[in-house]
This record gives sequence, structure tokens and C-alpha cells, in this order.
Amino acid sequence: MNKHVYQFGPGGADGDGKMKDVLGGKGAGLAEMCRANLPVPPGFTISTEVCNIYFENKNQVPDEIHKEMLQALDKLQKQMGQTLGDTENPLLVSVRSGAKFSMPGMMDTVLNLGLNDKTVLALERKSGNPRFAYDCYRRFIQMFGNVVLDIEKHDFDHVFDGRKKKVKAKFDTDLTAEDLKAVIVDYKKLVEKKTGKPFPQEAIQQLAMSRDAVFRSWFNARAIYYRKMNNIPDNLGTAVNVQAMVFGNMGDTSATGVGFTRNPSTGEKAFYGEYLVNAQGEDVVSGVRTPQPISTLEALMPAAYRELHEITTSLEQHYRDVQDFEFTIQDGKLYMLQTRNGKRTGPAAVRIAVDMVNEGLISKEEAVLRVDPQQLDQLLHPVLDPASKKSLATIAKGLPASPGAAVGRVVFTADEAVKQATAGPVILVRAETEPNDIHGMEVAKGILTSRGGMTSHAAVVCRGMGTPCVAGAGDVDVNAQRKEMSVTVGGKKMTLKEGDWLSLDGSTGEAFAGQANTIDADPSSGIMATFMAWADVFRGKFGVRANADIPRDAKAARKFGAEGIGLCRTEHMFFAEDRIAHMQAMILAQDEKSRRKALAKLLPMQRADFAGLFKAMDGFPVLVRTLDPPLHEFLPKREVLMVDLAKLPAADLKAKKEMVSRYERLGATVKDLKKVLTGLLERVEQLHEFNPMLGLRGCRLGIMYPEITEMQVRAIFEAAVQVAKKGVKVIPEIEIPLIGSVEEFANQKKIVVRIAEEVLGKAGLKDFKYKVGCMIEIPRAALTADLIAKEADFFSFGTNDLTQTTMGLSRDDYTKFQKVYEDAKVFKYDPFAVLDQQGVGKLVEMCVKLGRQTRPDLEIGICGEHGGEPSSVQFCYRVGLNYVSCSPYRVPIARLAAAQAAISGDKSETMRTA
Amino acid sequence: MNKHVYQFGPGGADGDGKMKDVLGGKGAGLAEMCRANLPVPPGFTISTEVCNIYFENKNQVPDEIHKEMLQALDKLQKQMGQTLGDTENPLLVSVRSGAKFSMPGMMDTVLNLGLNDKTVLALERKSGNPRFAYDCYRRFIQMFGNVVLDIEKHDFDHVFDGRKKKVKAKFDTDLTAEDLKAVIVDYKKLVEKKTGKPFPQEAIQQLAMSRDAVFRSWFNARAIYYRKMNNIPDNLGTAVNVQAMVFGNMGDTSATGVGFTRNPSTGEKAFYGEYLVNAQGEDVVSGVRTPQPISTLEALMPAAYRELHEITTSLEQHYRDVQDFEFTIQDGKLYMLQTRNGKRTGPAAVRIAVDMVNEGLISKEEAVLRVDPQQLDQLLHPVLDPASKKSLATIAKGLPASPGAAVGRVVFTADEAVKQATAGPVILVRAETEPNDIHGMEVAKGILTSRGGMTSHAAVVCRGMGTPCVAGAGDVDVNAQRKEMSVTVGGKKMTLKEGDWLSLDGSTGEAFAGQANTIDADPSSGIMATFMAWADVFRGKFGVRANADIPRDAKAARKFGAEGIGLCRTEHMFFAEDRIAHMQAMILAQDEKSRRKALAKLLPMQRADFAGLFKAMDGFPVLVRTLDPPLHEFLPKREVLMVDLAKLPAADLKAKKEMVSRYERLGATVKDLKKVLTGLLERVEQLHEFNPMLGLRGCRLGIMYPEITEMQVRAIFEAAVQVAKKGVKVIPEIEIPLIGSVEEFANQKKIVVRIAEEVLGKAGLKDFKYKVGCMIEIPRAALTADLIAKEADFFSFGTNDLTQTTMGLSRDDYTKFQKVYEDAKVFKYDPFAVLDQQGVGKLVEMCVKLGRQTRPDLEIGICGEHGGEPSSVQFCYRVGLNYVSCSPYRVPIARLAAAQAAISGDKSETMRTA
Repeated sequence: MNKHVYQFGPGGADGDGKMKDVLGGKGAGLAEMCRANLPVPPGFTISTEVCNIYFENKNQVPDEIHKEMLQALDKLQKQMGQTLGDTENPLLVSVRSGAKFSMPGMMDTVLNLGLNDKTVLALERKSGNPRFAYDCYRRFIQMFGNVVLDIEKHDFDHVFDGRKKKVKAKFDTDLTAEDLKAVIVDYKKLVEKKTGKPFPQEAIQQLAMSRDAVFRSWFNARAIYYRKMNNIPDNLGTAVNVQAMVFGNMGDTSATGVGFTRNPSTGEKAFYGEYLVNAQGEDVVSGVRTPQPISTLEALMPAAYRELHEITTSLEQHYRDVQDFEFTIQDGKLYMLQTRNGKRTGPAAVRIAVDMVNEGLISKEEAVLRVDPQQLDQLLHPVLDPASKKSLATIAKGLPASPGAAVGRVVFTADEAVKQATAGPVILVRAETEPNDIHGMEVAKGILTSRGGMTSHAAVVCRGMGTPCVAGAGDVDVNAQRKEMSVTVGGKKMTLKEGDWLSLDGSTGEAFAGQANTIDADPSSGIMATFMAWADVFRGKFGVRANADIPRDAKAARKFGAEGIGLCRTEHMFFAEDRIAHMQAMILAQDEKSRRKALAKLLPMQRADFAGLFKAMDGFPVLVRTLDPPLHEFLPKREVLMVDLAKLPAADLKAKKEMVSRYERLGATVKDLKKVLTGLLERVEQLHEFNPMLGLRGCRLGIMYPEITEMQVRAIFEAAVQVAKKGVKVIPEIEIPLIGSVEEFANQKKIVVRIAEEVLGKAGLKDFKYKVGCMIEIPRAALTADLIAKEADFFSFGTNDLTQTTMGLSRDDYTKFQKVYEDAKVFKYDPFAVLDQQGVGKLVEMCVKLGRQTRPDLEIGICGEHGGEPSSVQFCYRVGLNYVSCSPYRVPIARLAAAQAAISGDKSETMRTA
Repeated sequence: MNKHVYQFGPGGADGDGKMKDVLGGKGAGLAEMCRANLPVPPGFTISTEVCNIYFENKNQVPDEIHKEMLQALDKLQKQMGQTLGDTENPLLVSVRSGAKFSMPGMMDTVLNLGLNDKTVLALERKSGNPRFAYDCYRRFIQMFGNVVLDIEKHDFDHVFDGRKKKVKAKFDTDLTAEDLKAVIVDYKKLVEKKTGKPFPQEAIQQLAMSRDAVFRSWFNARAIYYRKMNNIPDNLGTAVNVQAMVFGNMGDTSATGVGFTRNPSTGEKAFYGEYLVNAQGEDVVSGVRTPQPISTLEALMPAAYRELHEITTSLEQHYRDVQDFEFTIQDGKLYMLQTRNGKRTGPAAVRIAVDMVNEGLISKEEAVLRVDPQQLDQLLHPVLDPASKKSLATIAKGLPASPGAAVGRVVFTADEAVKQATAGPVILVRAETEPNDIHGMEVAKGILTSRGGMTSHAAVVCRGMGTPCVAGAGDVDVNAQRKEMSVTVGGKKMTLKEGDWLSLDGSTGEAFAGQANTIDADPSSGIMATFMAWADVFRGKFGVRANADIPRDAKAARKFGAEGIGLCRTEHMFFAEDRIAHMQAMILAQDEKSRRKALAKLLPMQRADFAGLFKAMDGFPVLVRTLDPPLHEFLPKREVLMVDLAKLPAADLKAKKEMVSRYERLGATVKDLKKVLTGLLERVEQLHEFNPMLGLRGCRLGIMYPEITEMQVRAIFEAAVQVAKKGVKVIPEIEIPLIGSVEEFANQKKIVVRIAEEVLGKAGLKDFKYKVGCMIEIPRAALTADLIAKEADFFSFGTNDLTQTTMGLSRDDYTKFQKVYEDAKVFKYDPFAVLDQQGVGKLVEMCVKLGRQTRPDLEIGICGEHGGEPSSVQFCYRVGLNYVSCSPYRVPIARLAAAQAAISGDKSETMRTA
């Protein structure tokens, strides 16, 4: 028969520290401590498997397992010389949850179990402390009532506070034993009223009910949410730990506390924690009394303190990691209640890893594996001061679209942002941003949008610029016309107007009304540099590049360790104030000649940008993608034009002037407004698409208008020549987007080679090396990669679009049913954030295989958003890509993730949650 | 050395009839006839390979090949006892093109080559017929000038007609030898003026120049176009046939003609053709003189006629197919100039195939392979009377979106169509149709749209209903408001107004102003039935189903031989006048309760439809797809609402009433117009999508609103129960659309099974069989088919959407660059018409493999537009699908294509052009 219940106690245990799967983290830790002969109150662990059995068996623990538990209880009783429910010498136990992965505070606990109207008298007798006995009993009723019987906590508080008021007690400790007896009477009445039954007096029944309640708490809302956030599977289940009670509330020689072997916020090597004298565990966390720093315990109870310090130090040595421990001192004697690897902040994780290597405790490999790449974010961006965060009202919760803290005054248009930014920091709030908001986005300290997902325009652009962004805060109603945003919080409508202060936490997706303080990050600290240098050694040849469109971003990318540019989106250059007009003229041109004329004006601007990129990336490759977005993105929106035209007949001069301001760049005046709008609408209608994502864009533009490709290639190579002559090492890679077939690619490659040879030939640089390759973002390209590789020098996966096409899922529209999909467990995560390895990944793998079949040395990278997401980076490493490319601020994260993949080999999937 | 020139002549030839690849069709035919000792003027064929060499070698025939030709010429001269350019006994030759696949009239020919100012005198002498000699010479100059020297034909006509006028000649034959001499003088002047050089007198030079011109004609515009239309590769090249001239214009004992061994229009077994006495080949086709029916030749030249009849009959026996031949009778002696398998109409193809089987000439397999499946279309739809077509002005050319002829009066809105249809036939003309035009489309005899491709809404719906449709006629400007359409034809603007007559040929994509006559088709003729029965035997178990949404279409499908419904699009039922309001109420509902209320009203209507389908398909499976399109398709368009709202403040009562008429069904009145429009727009904005194709549709709707799936499944099974109880054998298959993952499918399947079991249980039909499966139209579904097959009973490929997602190509937007793509040879065909086997097909194959790995008996079909396209049907057969499903009118085509695939095995790719 399968073993379901595992005993532990002084000097031994059925399980051990490695059995987290079966015993949960807490149970495994208790077993391991017992095996190490540490002072641990004895008990037993009901395995995680029983949790699943419980749910499969219609919320019932099967008889045979219940019997197994009673046998374990029997052993425990013998060990303790006490019996559960005995009126002379009653055993009291705690019942605690404990899952494989720590989920602090998410599930339930019952203490002092075994007390009833009779055993409490024995406790009173044995302890000689009536107040202690009745305090234990009332706490038990309260916890049992809340956890097992589902009675609201505040119903108990109401009774308790009523009593305090009645006897004019200031603190809980002011209540006497008699007062507590009265509380107990009222608590029991409350239980009977709420449940229709008296408070259960039978101790075994109390135990069974508490056990089942702890199982049930696996599926309470906050536990489900926590698991979802932390990618913990729902089918792991929780174990239940039943352990003999020890009491920190038996008087002034008793205490209870928690601690860490090192500071979990900073990583500093210092014994860290807090405790309360004469208290039970929950008093430390409830905030009713203020716990003392652990250093003061030494003076109060020197022996216990010394023992605690020794034990925890040796636990850290044993586990070779920071320990997070719980202890109780009962009448001078120390008991360890829990130990586990401690959670820590990003900065602490890095510092502890580096310190432990220097202390000889762990290897460099282990150090690199110890830091969750995602956590590095905290070292790269300023953060909101937690204290200051608490003092402000949360006004919105959106997606953590671009990390970091931002504080500024609210503006609602890009123009207003530019105007006000000179006077002080501004936060740009929009329903959604669009390409021609770029000038406002550049000056804003942070961006908040009410629509759009993790890969919306705002999110992508902000991550590229390192600007904090909260996106898709759906509850916020943004009214740009009235210059206000409003949101209903707890039934109350809150409104912020232009100029009001707003604070964003782009790492959590929160927005706060008011002006929070921020704490600066120091990404280039010595410890960080040491750590990243180790990671880079393990990473080896696997490259990390950055997506950067302008020289400023390229410079930032180099600072973060990028080894080249993996994607330069040339179109971003076209939205700038001085260029958009030429771009529009190009689009509105009626023939090739006038199109070429407009393109000629863009040429020197692009050339200057490229020169800047090449300079910043001296010696590293710069991958430039030719024009990608549909042309209508550069023109006014169709529906705006239609509405303006509809309003025009009845518009007065003021309204007309207002309209003209929108179309000035396109040559509109009050007089010829109708003509200009009609003409514009005509072209916009021609370009209108039902599904722009699948329309006339990417290489299709270059095939339709070869002169656009020509101009861009000319700008790239003229810049290369110009910069190379100054001694800069230029390695250009020309990328053709949206390729679906080798015929498309060959068409564009021919243009690239022709222009490149022409420019290089004229400059006398005949042997200059460059590559021409393509973006793989359409399933067909992956499916026919063997053919495309005959022509292409490199591939780069555009996994944003590849995810859209492979899943038939528009990232802009997906947000509409994302919640439903995640709630229904149809999707386990957002596929635009975490690469869908099962579907999209299968295509990626196939493409790599087919491509290298044709051209074994084919250079293959990835430039989608996934290039900076740790599990996706690890996937890319595993399937044999040459490099990943991500936004500059994610470069260190990608470097670390790649290093971890290299160290873990194929085990990388388990690593992330390890 | 490779042989490039092949001799042929009386009694023998270097090549034979099988060498079409090398000799072209004409050359192979001539060689074969020579081998059969038929009277063929001797000559030689320059192989197709030389054509490619010519282009690769910078439009030059290499010296060694030229020498090979001169050697062949030498042999010919010896055979004939004549010498090219000889002033005593000159050899005259014809130079003709001849490609592997017949391209009638597409390339060039030069006759009478070898004539010059001196040899013409010898011809005069030898023939004793000066008029004949000078007529030959002037023809030669004219053809050579046109074909080789690129001088416009009408320049020569101008000279010739000038002479005729001058001498007051009515017919060409009225010109005397002297007149012709004068014409020759003027022709030579014209040549010198146009080319700057005198007309070449050197015969070998004439020959080389003509040969090269024939090669060049392989890439003239009409040849390129013809090849594109007929899927003939560009790299085949044409051969050049140089053949001794025989003259049909040597007097009244000479003649020339063309003919068929059977009637190519009807298939009737009758000697068929026409000829002219005293004429050269081009006179027969030029239309200047009216040729005589061949039957009259018997009286005129009985011996020659008899010989011709015998020869062609034996040629038909030899080739076992209808022969299309050319002959010349020179001074009573018959010469065969060409024989080839004759092109024929669809009805003729079927009749000839059946007759030849009955005659014991070919096997049934061969008969089935002889008919191009596409040609069956001509037997299924009425056609425009060709004569009547000629008499009308072509007003537009669009895509042949749904075959057949339609004649009616023009209307511009669906409502107007309904109103006027009672008075007489109407043609609905729209910029593009949309789902709520359906009532108008149902009554219209034909549809013309100016936008949209072969799979646009209009095209798909029309094919389903069997209504002729010309789609995407881009030159037509449709103005529904002014109730007119206009188009500029040859610089002249033509306008049709409401009520004007319009004739459509949906098989060719042409539209004609005016009222054409139509000729009815007879799809159920005995011959057709015999032929299809043979095809079905070869097709075996491979099924052909129809896409049908309503009982009427289902009944039509059965008539065409459909073995079940492969796709019923339930949403089409919702657009009907009596249902759309409930559908809209459902969409506008604020909560589940009101949504269910609206759904409850739709339930009985759907149930009745399903009952009708089940009855029509008694004993055959009926596959019903749950709701697929995005909900905003059922509401007014966003931009229309925005414009109406913008106009509202300045609108007078009349304008308001006009607006109300648009929103009446949605509860608008003049008074609350603003409120209703604002509310509507709000919901439409909520539902607005950037890429609807990739948005909230398909199974995503069912997951978001499970009550929709519930209602549809209930309707299906209640209908099944109701009909089954009447003794009808019902085989329902429930299909979930837009599946991308097994989780999505499992979610919807659970609902289907729950409701089905409930309804069947209540009816006491516990053992009732049904299937639940999914549409494969997203690459991810194909990539994870092994997982999905764990849950799904069947797959059905939705290759329309699968093509869109796999290629990242919106079918609605593709038309914008389709022409550029086809001209640039990026696409060889429209991937929405012909399945892209290399890309999409690869995914299909992978999916079939993965799915059957999990479930070997998985039923797999296809229901996209490709299900009725012959090459795609053959692909489906090859990769192991169980059936194809297509619009009812394409069912016979699919049946034949499948039979051909079965007969050809894996050789089907070559079959189509064989």
C-alpha cells in the first residue's frame, strides 16, 4: 500500500528534506531538521497526494487513509505521553498546510487543536496559568471557526472588541482569564448561531475537520491567484502537517519569532528577524503588537538566542542557501518550527549568490542558477518607495507592461506632454497610444493606457525606451477631450484631471493617485558586474542583442551588454516630426516619380540614423529591417476623416480651424478643407484593410514599391561607407520582413544586392561583408525554410507576429477574452509574453532544422518580445538559435537566462521554479 | 553532342509523336504523320531547347546550332530538289511555332519564306501564274514585316487598302498581278522607312530572322497571359518548324482548310471543318472571305476529300482522340500540315469520352481522365449565347467568382432587389456585399461587385446558392446613392442606372451592358449520368460532400451527388430578416440572462432549419459548425454609426427619418435617435477589432458565451430527435470552429456532450450516434493535432482560413497586391483558389499524420473553397483525407477530380495538364 502519512520527531523521520513533492516544503524541512537532531516538536505529515485524493473522492479523505492518520497520531501520543482530548494530560497540536512551493500566507492553519471545555481545565491545571489556558482556547475557537467553519473573522473580532470595550481594556493582554472565559462563551454562541451546531468538542473530529479545511484551502481564491502568478500547477496539492503544540505564550520566559539567516531585502550577511515575548505565532504577523528585532533577544534569553543562531547558521550551511525560519521558545527551551530557503529581492539574490561563492559555500554555476532572471529587473529600474506606495490610493491595476517607477503630472495628449514636460515630469495617459504619439511618449516619465496588452504599441515602445508603462488598465475611463481620467474604486468614483500627480509602478502594473517617492537603482554596481561576468562565461557563444531603432537606444543597449542590434525597425524613424510629412507625401504620391521624390528627402535622414547606430555598435552586427507596417498607419485614421467630413457642412469657423490643425501638415486650409479631406479619405479608403496584420505590409510593400526598398538599402550602405571610412567596424545585416516564400525573398534580395554593390563599388569597398536575411513571422516561412535558406544568409524569428499567425490570434484583440481564457484554463499564460513552446515553438524548431539542412551555418536569432523572457530564452538556447534580441533593458535578463540554459542543459524547464 | 534539329519528310522522321517535350505538339504531330506515310510536306523542327538557349544566350542562336539547321536545310533542299534563294528553282518554306501544349494563335508564323525580287520571278515562271507569285510575295513581306520587323499590321493594310481604293477593287482577289507588284513596291518602301534598311533579300538571313522572331514570340504578352491562364510553365519554350511550302492558292484546284474529326462544340461524331478554294491558311481565319463547310468539298474535289476523310479517321484511331487538323490541297494533291488532339467544350468532352468507350476506342479509365473537371461547369450552368455576347458592349471584367450566365435589370441595394424581383429578373450590383445583403442576394439572378476576390463574401455565398457572380470588377465605380454604376471603356465613360439591363458571365468574369440570350444547361443528361457513374466507381470510398446552410441548398447538393453535408454555417441562418433582430438583441444583451432570452427565440428557428437539412440528407452525415463570425458582423458598421452621430446635430427631420430607417430594427425613433446611436456605438466599439480574422470568433465565442453553444447544440439534437422519430436516418456531426488547442476543444466538447446527452436521454435515444470534431483552420491546430485528436472524433480542414493564417494573408486585402504578385511571379496562382501544396499543404499533411497517429480511424475532410478545385481535390486524395466538401454546384467537379486522382495514383500532379 502507498504510504500517505509520514512521522517525524526528535532524532528521526520517515521522510527527508528532498521529499518536497510528497511532504511539501514545510514537511520536508521538518523531517530534515529532525534527522539533524534539531529541537523540533514531533508530529506527522499527511502527503500532498492525499489532497488530490480528497478532491477526487468528493471532498472526503478515504477511510483507510484516515485510519493511517490515526495510527500516526497514536505514535505521536505515545512519543509525547499525551493523548488528544484527554482530560488529564491532553495533547494539543497545530494543523498547517505546506505545499511543494512556498505560498506564504495563502492557505490555512489551525493552532491549539485538541482544546475543548474539558481539556482547557487540564491545560489550566498543568500550566498553572489560567489566562494562558483560556487565551489558547479562545484563539482555537476563533481560528477553527474561521478556517474550518467559514465564519467571518470580523464576527469574532466584534465579540472580542466588545469585551475589551466593556472592561475598558486597552490591549488584548489587559483581558483577564475571567474576561477570556466570557469571550469563549460568546464565541461558542456565535458558532452555534452561524452553523446551527455547537462548537465541536470531540478532538478527533476537530482534527479531521481541520485537516479537510486545510486541503480545501488549496483552492481558495487567493491560493489559485498566487499559483497563477507564479506558474505553479494546480495539481500539486498541499500536504498537512500535524505537530505537537509548543507555546510561546506561557509567560515572559516564552517567545515566538521568525527570521532569516541574511537580510532578504539587501542580501547583507546579518542575522535578521523579529520576535515577541509571551505570544503565539499569529501575534507576530497580525501587527497588533510590534515585534522586536531579533538582536535584542540575546540580552533577554542568551542561551536560547545562542542556540537559535547556531542552529540557523548550520541550517544555512546544510542547505547552502539563506534560511527563512520560525521558532518558539517555551519556558526557555527553543523549538524550531520551520526552515526553508528564504525568498529575497533581486538585489539581495545577486548579493547573496556572489557572497556565497566568495564564502566557498556554492559554485559559480549554482550562483548563476540562484537568481530568477526576471528579478534582475529590480536592479535595472528605479522603484517606488514601498512606504510611500502604502500611503497612496491605488487608482488602477493594469498590466506590468514596462518596468520601473514613474511619478509625474497627468497629461492626456502627446502635444500637451511635450508642452508641459519642460516644467516638470509628466505621465501620459491615453486610451491607447499610436505611432504619432511618439513625441509625447519620448518626453513622458511614464505611460498609462486603458486598452492594449503586453505587446500593445505603448508597451513595446516603452520597453524599448526604458520608460515605465502600465497598459490595459481596463477600469480606467480616459476622456482626453475633458482632460480627465476616472475610475470607480470600491463603489466610489475617483477622477484625476490634467496636472494632478500620478505614480506608476510599471513592474507590478499599479497606478497610484498622488506623488510617491522613488528609489534609484544601480545596475552597474560591482556585485552585479561580477555576477553578470560569471553568467556570460557560462553563456559562451550564445549571443544577446538588443532591439534598438535610434542611436540613443543603441548606446543604452551597449551599456547593458548587448552584442549587436537584433532588430532596428526603420519605420519608427519615420514618425518623427520632421519626417512624417515626407513619408505622407510618399504615400499620397500618384506615381513612381513623385514617390521617388519624397523618398529622396527621407534618404539623408535615414542615412544619419544608420550612421549613428553603426557607430554605437562598432564591431557588432546591426540588423536593419526594411519598412514593415501598412502605409495607412502613417495617415490620419479613416473614421476620423469620415466624421470630420460628416461634420464639415455644419461646422463654424472655429470648428473648421480646429479641424485644419489636424491636417495642417497635409496642406489643409480653412478654404480647401473639403477638397483636402475628400482626397485624403480617397487614398485612405484605397489603403483600408480588413485585417491589416495580414495585409499589404512587410516585403509586400517592397515588392509593390521597389523604390522604398531601394532608398532604405541605399541609406544603409551610404551610412556604412561613411562610418567605415572613419575606422568604425560596420557589420550590416539587411532583413526583409513578412517573408512567406522564397520567391518573395529573392525578389527583395535582388534589390538589396544591386544597390549594395552599386554603393560599395562606388566607394571602392568591394570586399565589404554584409548579410541579407529574412524575418520568420509567418508559418509558411517556417514550413518552407529549406527553400528560403537557399537564398537567405540569416533568419530572425519575429515571434510576436509568428504567435499571432500560428495561433490565429490578434494581440490587440486578444485582451477582450484573455481573462475568460485564463480563468477557463484554456491558456496557462499570455502567449505574447511567454513563448508557446508546444505550438509556435514546434514551428520554430522545425524551421531551424529545415533551414540548417540547407545551410548548416545559417545564423538564426529571435527578435520578438519573447527574446527577453527567461523561459523563452532558454527554449531558444535549447533549439540551437545563435542569439536572442530584446529591448535594451531586458538584455541582462536574457544574458542570465541564457547562462542558466547553458548550465542546465536540457533541464531548463524545471529550473525556473526550482 | 545534343541533337537540336529533327528532320521529317515522306516515309520517315528523326522524331516521333511522343516527343512533344522536344519537338512541340506540331513538330511531334508532323513526325508521327511522316512515319505513318501520310502526305506531309517535308521539313525540319528546331527543338524547344533551342528556344531556352536563345534567351540564355542573349537572344542569339549559337553558331553550332545554326550550322546544324543549315545541314537540315541542305537535306530538305536535296529532298525537294530545290534551293532556298535559288533564282531558277527556289525552295519556299513556312516557319511556324509549336510548343508542348497547344497555344492556338498565341505565337507567330511566317509563310512563303525564300521569296525576294528574283525568286518571285522563278515562282511566276514555274507556276505560270503571275498573280499567284506576286500575291505570295506581298503576303511574305507583310508577314515578315509584321512578325520579324515589328511593323504594325495596319501600316500594311493602309498600303493595301489604298491600292484597292485606287483601282476600285472590291475584294482582294480583284487585284491583278500588276496591282500586287505596285503593292510590293510600296511595302518595301514602308519597310525601309520603318526599319531604316531595305527589305532583306538574302533567303538564309530571312530564315534566321524568322526563326528568332518565332522564339521571341514565346514571350509576347498574349502568350505569357495564355500560359498564366492555363498554368503552362514559362520555361518550356517553343519549337520552330521549317517546312516546304505547299500552296492552296494556286488556282481553283487548290484549297486550304482546317477541321475536327468530331464536333468540338457538341461532341457529335461528324466530320467537321471548313475550307477555302484558292487561298492560303491565314485567309481561312482572317474572316475576309467566308469559308465553306467541309461537307461541300466532296463535290468539288472528291478524291482529295476522300483521302482527307480516310487520313483523319485513321489519325483519330491512331491517337485514340479527336483530331484537330490542317490541310492544303495544291493543284488537286492533298497535304497534311498538322494534326493534334482537338480542344473541346465541356459537353463535347463528356460526350466524346463516353462515345469512344462505347466504340471500344478507349477504356473507362481513359474516358474519366479525358475530361478536365473544371469543364464540367459548362454542363451545370446556363451559359450566355455566344452570338448575343458578341453583340453587346463589355462593360466590365472581374473575377469569375461563381459560374453561369445571368441577365437582369440593375439594382444597387438588397432592399431594392427584393422590391423589383417580383417584376422581373434583377442583377444586384454592389461595391462589396455583406452578410445583411443576403435577402437581396437570394432574389437576384446574378451579382456584380467592384471589390473582393474569389473568396469574398459575394463569391462564397453565390457559389453556395449557384448564383452567377462577377466579383472584384475594379474598374467599375458603384454609386449606390446615385443608383448608378460607371466605367470608362476605351476612354469613354459608360453609365448604367437602376433598371438598365445587364448580362453577366460568371464563368469568365465578364459583364455586358444589355440583355443577352442564355442557353440552358442539362446536367442530368443521360451521357453525363453515365460518365459520372464511371467516375464514381473509380473514386471508391473517397467521399464528396457539399457545403450547404439551408434545406434548399442541401436538396440541390443531393441532386449533384453529394454524400452528406461537409459544412453547415449556422450563422448564415441568422442573417435572415426574421432572425437578425433576435441575434442583435442577443449581442446587445447586458447579461447572461437577457442573452439567454434572445437565444431562446432563435432556438426554434434553428431547430427547423436543422430538421430540414437532416431530412434532405437522410442516411448521410450532416456536419454543423457552431457560430463562427465575430459578433460585430451582425451590427451596423462602426464608421456608419460614427458618421450618423456626427451628422445628427445638424440633421433636419427628413435626414433624421432617413437615419431612423437604418436603425428601426434596433428600436430607434426620431426622438431618441441620439441615445440609441450612442448606445449602439458603445457596444460596437467594445466589439471593434483591429484584425477581426484573428479576433473574438469561432470557439472563442463559445468559450466566452457558453449559452450560445448550448442553444445551437440543443437545436441540433432536438431537430435530430424530431426527424429521427419520423424514420429519417440522422447522422449529426458537431464541429467547433477556430480551434487552436485541445483545451479549447475540450471546453466546447463538454458542452456539446452534456446537452446532447440531456436531449437524447429525454427522448429515450440513448444509443444515438453522433460525432464531435473540429475545424482545422489555424496552424497551431495542425501542429498539435496529435493532442487534439485525443478529444476530437473528426477533423475538417477550413483551408480558406488556414491559407490566411499560414500565409499571413488576408483574402479580403490580398486583391490589392494580387496583380503585382502574379506579374512578379511571386505567386504562380491565387492561393485561395488553388491550394498552396508547398506551404499550407505541408501543414495539412503533417496534421493528417499526427491526428491519425493518435486515432487511426480519425475522419478527416476539407470544407474550404479548395474542396471543389480539381488539383486540390487530388491533393486531398493523395494525403489520405476521407472526403472533400464544396459548394453544391462543384460537387460533380470534385467527384471527377477524385476519380482522376484515384486512377492516376501519385501521378496526379502531371495529370492536369496532360
